[in-house]
Amino acid sequence: MSKNLTKRSEDYSKWYNELVVKADLAENSGVRGCMVIKPYGYAIWEKMQAELDRMFKETGHQNAYFPLFIPKSYFSKEASHVDGFAKECAVVTHYRLRTAADGKTIEVDPDAKLEEELIVRPTSETIIWDTYKGWIQSYRDLPLLINQWANVVRWEMRTRLFLRTAEFLWQEGHTAHATEKEAVAEAEQMMNVYADFAENFMAIPVIKGVKTANERFAGAIETYCIEALMQDGKALQAGTSHFLGQNFAKAFDVKFANKEGKQEHVWATSWGVSTRLMGALVMTHSDDNGLVLPPNLAPIQVVIVPIYRNDEQFDAVSDAANELMAKLRKLNISVKYDNRDTHKPGFKFNEYELKGVPVRIGLGPKDLENGTFEVARRDTLTKEIVSNTDIVTYIQDLLEEIQTNLYAKAQTYRDSHITEVNSFDEFKEVLENKGGFISAHWDGTPETEDKIKDLTKATIRCITLDRKEEAGACVLTGNPSVGRVLFAKAY
Amino acid sequence: MSKNLTKRSEDYSKWYNELVVKADLAENSGVRGCMVIKPYGYAIWEKMQAELDRMFKETGHQNAYFPLFIPKSYFSKEASHVDGFAKECAVVTHYRLRTAADGKTIEVDPDAKLEEELIVRPTSETIIWDTYKGWIQSYRDLPLLINQWANVVRWEMRTRLFLRTAEFLWQEGHTAHATEKEAVAEAEQMMNVYADFAENFMAIPVIKGVKTANERFAGAIETYCIEALMQDGKALQAGTSHFLGQNFAKAFDVKFANKEGKQEHVWATSWGVSTRLMGALVMTHSDDNGLVLPPNLAPIQVVIVPIYRNDEQFDAVSDAANELMAKLRKLNISVKYDNRDTHKPGFKFNEYELKGVPVRIGLGPKDLENGTFEVARRDTLTKEIVSNTDIVTYIQDLLEEIQTNLYAKAQTYRDSHITEVNSFDEFKEVLENKGGFISAHWDGTPETEDKIKDLTKATIRCITLDRKEEAGACVLTGNPSVGRVLFAKAY
Repeated sequence: MSKNLTKRSEDYSKWYNELVVKADLAENSGVRGCMVIKPYGYAIWEKMQAELDRMFKETGHQNAYFPLFIPKSYFSKEASHVDGFAKECAVVTHYRLRTAADGKTIEVDPDAKLEEELIVRPTSETIIWDTYKGWIQSYRDLPLLINQWANVVRWEMRTRLFLRTAEFLWQEGHTAHATEKEAVAEAEQMMNVYADFAENFMAIPVIKGVKTANERFAGAIETYCIEALMQDGKALQAGTSHFLGQNFAKAFDVKFANKEGKQEHVWATSWGVSTRLMGALVMTHSDDNGLVLPPNLAPIQVVIVPIYRNDEQFDAVSDAANELMAKLRKLNISVKYDNRDTHKPGFKFNEYELKGVPVRIGLGPKDLENGTFEVARRDTLTKEIVSNTDIVTYIQDLLEEIQTNLYAKAQTYRDSHITEVNSFDEFKEVLENKGGFISAHWDGTPETEDKIKDLTKATIRCITLDRKEEAGACVLTGNPSVGRVLFAKAY
Repeated sequence: MSKNLTKRSEDYSKWYNELVVKADLAENSGVRGCMVIKPYGYAIWEKMQAELDRMFKETGHQNAYFPLFIPKSYFSKEASHVDGFAKECAVVTHYRLRTAADGKTIEVDPDAKLEEELIVRPTSETIIWDTYKGWIQSYRDLPLLINQWANVVRWEMRTRLFLRTAEFLWQEGHTAHATEKEAVAEAEQMMNVYADFAENFMAIPVIKGVKTANERFAGAIETYCIEALMQDGKALQAGTSHFLGQNFAKAFDVKFANKEGKQEHVWATSWGVSTRLMGALVMTHSDDNGLVLPPNLAPIQVVIVPIYRNDEQFDAVSDAANELMAKLRKLNISVKYDNRDTHKPGFKFNEYELKGVPVRIGLGPKDLENGTFEVARRDTLTKEIVSNTDIVTYIQDLLEEIQTNLYAKAQTYRDSHITEVNSFDEFKEVLENKGGFISAHWDGTPETEDKIKDLTKATIRCITLDRKEEAGACVLTGNPSVGRVLFAKAY
């Protein structure tokens, strides 16, 4: 197959849009801003889900399911929360259709108007805290550690596959605790779980930090985040974990009797990652030839492509392929033998390159004669001739090596794109010509942050958890600063 | 804990509603007709999902995800489909909220009206077939075998937890085929997968059949179903699989080039099971003491409850419990050791009975002395003293036995509740006093079926796949019939 993929250097954004569609990850649907996640893309998402779910359960969380709809009155109980989401809410107002007067077309039945409009959940804090009120009476009911896998809707005006869609899939954790300290520890723990997942499973290096007031979740006291850097020098928020204080407990009147029998409001966290991670995955590792997938996330880790001129050769090659396949599957390596006779090997090579299959094995009569396999790796686009006797260990090691290499490559890029600047001219120059994270002093005010955003489109991605105390002068105003923060243009 | 559960013989419906809530499976939410699935209930649903997902993949299906919303115009493209669902559709008409004139309350922003209203999917045939149009060009693209795990909304006026809720969770398979024969085979295969799952995993015996025209899915040519019988003598449709013919392919203009290069419309199936199965599970096995779970579906298969009077006894008992736990876990048996010191053993016994844990092990100082365990099984409420040396094999065998026993018990009940009748008086008498399936002759007309429903509330549950040819006279009209069909009152 011909890939016809725009080069990243020509138009990164176009490259991304084309790649997501051509590699069969997702496509736009006929519904404004809503995507279809295709089987190949969904298989990757399922791998993310399975690993995250395992990590959540290992840290004591249970899954549950809460309603898709939120009554308008619940939604407005927490003031800053409704401010943050009101402008992007899909609203259900009616519950029936009817045949129109023309006897043919269908219209909304005006007699079937809801007494109270329902919001399609953009996030579930309100409906969940309304439920928790019935579940929490005593300190014995705490902590309550719950996660939900769900779809949510935020009516975005400009959408892009995976990165910003009106409907997306995510998980949202919602926990309740007896003390502030426990809730903060939970929020930090989940940020660490996300960082661990991003780095060790997705091979995406991330920076841990907290958001400034401007960028905080609507209703949170503190928003912890992990920030990744894409190949075009733009940052991507890959996951957030919020310490919500007692805001939602107060809004929904959720109290518990402590050990001394005194009534107290409950402390809360919420945390989430979404199908946005699919966008991060594509933009961190892929190249001008197509998708590059870390072995941990590849639906097909190894593909075997037969090379033959006649049935006899095909049979011999297939025998060897099936034998190898059986050995690899025993090691839980997912292998596909592509024996389609409708396509030539060259077409198949291109297709698996486009789809990011980590290891491709070519196998023809000459290989059989020599007792070897031709092994190509997707990340470096290099080939190696490997002997029959070593092949299984070789593949096993290679998959690990690819996983490690992808992380190292992304880390090298990221680390070389964190630039300290000490003047606003330098700030603009680096942002314009190099991109990446800019480490700069900031006077700590939302006004300055807004002004910098207006002037440059860069926002404060985070105050890193490990930031050094360092007296300095704000890059815009010259006012005193106690340490640097990370700015970047962001997705 | 005191269970205070209504007896089934007193009020079966009340017993069900109470049990679902008290056993922590689900509860009503503040949103009309929408339920909250609680962690314990959701853990059971996750087990169903995992097994079904495995079975779908084994039969060649892949998962994908399609939009929650369906434009009104798509929805009305297939005439009988829109007729079937129009009266129960939640409709999104606006995409923004704003602060009202009072400066305090929140209202729907009238300026943010959608150009075309969106239906919250009640089922996804229309949006999926609109998508398939882009995916199918040639016979090489077929069959297309796709499944989706999703939430759907049907605005029901009377709702009951799990059995009928405005929002529910389900899976919906949507497949496309080159020939009628293949599509029919797929629809039949999925009915068989569902039957296999219900019987061998959930221990629920089912009858396979096809629906009459009256009871068919809106848009289907043939609806295959599995029907189960609840303890109150009412039937429950546990899963359906539809042969859709070319209806949706024609409505959405989905054609493919066959091997001869001729354009043909594609043949379709769809099939689904939902969280309704949770209701079937409860109503098939549970008793007046609470939930009874088949070991395959039990989040906790074995619980160990320590009995002690002092710390020394507690430590000794805990050592033995931990040792047993380790051994059982090695066999992938899920075990909980309930060492809470806030509750007495009696309370715990009651709690695990209510929650349907299949096996309960009591362990105290006397058992340690004798080298025995007291093993109680939930299905028969009997106890056995088992020696230390046999315990692991005993538990393993017992779990299998409970699974088998539950199925056998349900089957005996079901089989004794299929009654052949040959007059309408007999029909009404059996329906009134015994319930269950009534096997009767029917003249094959929708009018007679409707009349019987009006007179008795019983509907034709299915024409069984294995029905015998048998000339007879319709139980209502006396008109000729070629074989019996199964009537019942149904959930």
